[in-house]
Amino acid sequence: MTETATRKRARGGGGAARRAERTAVRIESAKFIERNIPLFEVLTEEALEIIEYNAETLLEEVGVNFPENPKALERWRDAGADVQGERVRIPRGLARKLCETAPSSYTQHARNPERNVEIGGKNLVLAPVYGPPFVRDLEGGRRYATMDDFRNFVKLGYMSKWLHHSGGTVCEPTDVPVNKRHLDMLMAHMTLSDKPYMGSVTEPSRARDSVEMSEILFGKEFVQNNAVMTSLININSPMTFDDVMMGALEVYAEAGQGCIISPFIVGGAMAPVSVAGTLTQVLAEVLAGIAYSQLIRQGAPVIFGTFVSSIDMNSGAPTFGTPEASLILYGAGQLARRLGLPFRSGGSLCGSKLPDAQAAYETANTLNAALMGGVNFMLHSCGWLEGGLVSSYEKFVMDADQLGVLHRIAEGVKFDENAQAMDAIREVGPGGHYLGCAHTQANFKDAFWRTNVLDYKPFETWYEEGARDTQTLASIKVKKMLSDYQQPALDPAINEALAAYVAEKKASMPDAFT
Amino acid sequence: MTETATRKRARGGGGAARRAERTAVRIESAKFIERNIPLFEVLTEEALEIIEYNAETLLEEVGVNFPENPKALERWRDAGADVQGERVRIPRGLARKLCETAPSSYTQHARNPERNVEIGGKNLVLAPVYGPPFVRDLEGGRRYATMDDFRNFVKLGYMSKWLHHSGGTVCEPTDVPVNKRHLDMLMAHMTLSDKPYMGSVTEPSRARDSVEMSEILFGKEFVQNNAVMTSLININSPMTFDDVMMGALEVYAEAGQGCIISPFIVGGAMAPVSVAGTLTQVLAEVLAGIAYSQLIRQGAPVIFGTFVSSIDMNSGAPTFGTPEASLILYGAGQLARRLGLPFRSGGSLCGSKLPDAQAAYETANTLNAALMGGVNFMLHSCGWLEGGLVSSYEKFVMDADQLGVLHRIAEGVKFDENAQAMDAIREVGPGGHYLGCAHTQANFKDAFWRTNVLDYKPFETWYEEGARDTQTLASIKVKKMLSDYQQPALDPAINEALAAYVAEKKASMPDAFT
Repeated sequence: MTETATRKRARGGGGAARRAERTAVRIESAKFIERNIPLFEVLTEEALEIIEYNAETLLEEVGVNFPENPKALERWRDAGADVQGERVRIPRGLARKLCETAPSSYTQHARNPERNVEIGGKNLVLAPVYGPPFVRDLEGGRRYATMDDFRNFVKLGYMSKWLHHSGGTVCEPTDVPVNKRHLDMLMAHMTLSDKPYMGSVTEPSRARDSVEMSEILFGKEFVQNNAVMTSLININSPMTFDDVMMGALEVYAEAGQGCIISPFIVGGAMAPVSVAGTLTQVLAEVLAGIAYSQLIRQGAPVIFGTFVSSIDMNSGAPTFGTPEASLILYGAGQLARRLGLPFRSGGSLCGSKLPDAQAAYETANTLNAALMGGVNFMLHSCGWLEGGLVSSYEKFVMDADQLGVLHRIAEGVKFDENAQAMDAIREVGPGGHYLGCAHTQANFKDAFWRTNVLDYKPFETWYEEGARDTQTLASIKVKKMLSDYQQPALDPAINEALAAYVAEKKASMPDAFT
Repeated sequence: MTETATRKRARGGGGAARRAERTAVRIESAKFIERNIPLFEVLTEEALEIIEYNAETLLEEVGVNFPENPKALERWRDAGADVQGERVRIPRGLARKLCETAPSSYTQHARNPERNVEIGGKNLVLAPVYGPPFVRDLEGGRRYATMDDFRNFVKLGYMSKWLHHSGGTVCEPTDVPVNKRHLDMLMAHMTLSDKPYMGSVTEPSRARDSVEMSEILFGKEFVQNNAVMTSLININSPMTFDDVMMGALEVYAEAGQGCIISPFIVGGAMAPVSVAGTLTQVLAEVLAGIAYSQLIRQGAPVIFGTFVSSIDMNSGAPTFGTPEASLILYGAGQLARRLGLPFRSGGSLCGSKLPDAQAAYETANTLNAALMGGVNFMLHSCGWLEGGLVSSYEKFVMDADQLGVLHRIAEGVKFDENAQAMDAIREVGPGGHYLGCAHTQANFKDAFWRTNVLDYKPFETWYEEGARDTQTLASIKVKKMLSDYQQPALDPAINEALAAYVAEKKASMPDAFT
């Protein structure tokens, strides 16, 4: 399941070579998860039918808004919707019908074909945290994110075995002008990693830049015929499709590039306080959004997105890893599968300000739900802190380590003769132990998932080594990964062309910071 | 789902009474979980049949040991087993046949009937950590547990809304002689809590004392006709049934009291390194153990137990919250249900030395698996630290808070008209918000699970309040719970009789510390 690229730190003959071999940095990257386990489905057929009926009732009676987007209104009118001002009312059945041309799964290509990901079906593709304006680490505390931080997170993502995707805005590089930072961000993903990445969505022109830079990296024809980006199009819930986000969607769909169409909901604020009501609104919104993507280009690859947090009714703060959020995730997964669409949800979501126990409970609750609930594309798989305001260095590697747990659970249980281990049990017998038996010797290397971060040492050893908590251990790991980092090879001509494109674009416009 | 016992701190007329009312301590206790959600089943029918076949092959070919227990060997011989020395080989089908008389569920009575628990079926009963010789808290660090600690944990359990059971050895009170501590422990459970409890298993005579003290608490006839204890009988894996544990089982089964028959397995040491092999051995051991319980008394209430950790092959340390442990839990749950027996597994299991992120990841992984995997009785639901060597004060309340998440997920999704919330979505419409709408006003109080420990405050507030991590917040909560604690009423005559029993027993034998 895992391919290994071993890179040597140094080359030389004899002893030096052997020493180099021993200290070689192994950059491993697991294949995306192919589930060999069933899914957890919480909604009955009857419940699903109620939601589906109600969602179409909402589309027909209430409708959705496409503000400041006359072209979109025209497309909807042509498709048979009832358009009044910015309000689009979609007759029962129409949105669902339009969604039928969206593929049930698609390949997102990486510049290294071994890192291609298949999004949909039984697969689960893991991408890192997206969007935080702040970063946090043990020494530096919480501070505005910079482009240096951004590059560090791309490097960490490249070095993380269980992460299949380089992601997009791994943090907001606030030291680069708003209208230029997408160029630096794309450059970082394209050159510091060889995993697949996401495009910019903050302006239609930036989406176009993303396509053009991808054409330099992959070749124009390749990009015309293949998805090389999966980008995040948030719906402004309830029921509003922003012109900026729709502008980016239009660019990507026209270019045949993948998009996640995702309601962004803090339950109780942007959707009803009930699970059933939220699921109904989510489905209505996704139906409208994906239908619209297919109006732009039939067959454009899209993902049924669901980002839902619950709310603390005392403070109004979004809350994560809660039971309501898990139930919504499970239900939304069922709705997506009934539409035959890839599903995005989950992540290392948490509300905690520190990578402490709260962060880990909330994260683990969400990661487990995402695995069981059939998520195909998991954004924010690692590094998310403080309700998405902060990308945490330590939590990035802590979460990324836990992603290995998901891989192994998804493999399910083997039942060949070796796995049945009858000879081992016969050999050891009552009162014996298995540590030295033949079966253990033959299988122990791959028998158990191994952490790269957590501490399993005896108390005394752990105490003598400084009684370090998880955050401290992760901090050491972060430094080691960044120091071990080695850039994946890229054709220098492509690198130069990308740099030239970025320089030219930057020179073409004045800095803007809003 | 929750009954509330409100106890006033003070009584008085007018303003004083109202102030007392406002500051009244609410001691809430949730009913045990009745799952309204499906279970997660990882094994196919074919896989289950392989395990079942193999387990019976082991019982027949390899057999199990009942050392230093001639009476047990006689029982087995009479039942038709092949007994050679201490080895008992059980012909295919016999153990399974004997298990048929064990009930599929049973009521464990508490002295407060509102706290009775129904063990089996779709239910999940939550009991706290069991067995650690050490305790840890933020100020005192790690130290040997004392009887004062024990009483504190019983009080915390009584004050924990989501905990249904007072448990057993919530920590080992190392300051009380080994041969007398069970008396103090039972006294604590019986008088400081009104939730159900577990009996002593460290000597058959101590099991008898547990029955006798229960007879004082409940009345002799009641105990003869009802289960008032559920006690933990560990199997000495592989395939060995200790005379001490079997002695305790014999006492409890004869008295019609409940027992968990539980393999205690560190995978790779006490069972094969493979999931399928471990499940086979688990099933063989449980079949033999439960069959034996029914040889003692047909219909004796028993639970199919599975305590499995994986192992760190570098250090030999047991590891928790791992994917292999989850897969075994899921599989064992299926095996238990096919036998029609209640199932025990799960818990707040972790290997971490601190209640930090590692502890929480590992714990949440296990708690989620236990909910999804159909556990009926969860021992170690809260407070477990450092591989079970430590009962942690802070982790006790942190975990107990997370148990609320399980309750809410288990409720599933409501689909009545109010839950569908169509009028709310119509009222709010595109671009609006739900915070003030009628549906939110009517439902927000019960809409979302609420934490009692975690922090949802804005960053600035949290920072000004000292930037406290989960452990620190939990430490404050521990002190508040212990200071708010109020002892549940007990008939003074019963209290005196119990105290007299304990005093007499203690006086009847010299202290022993081994």
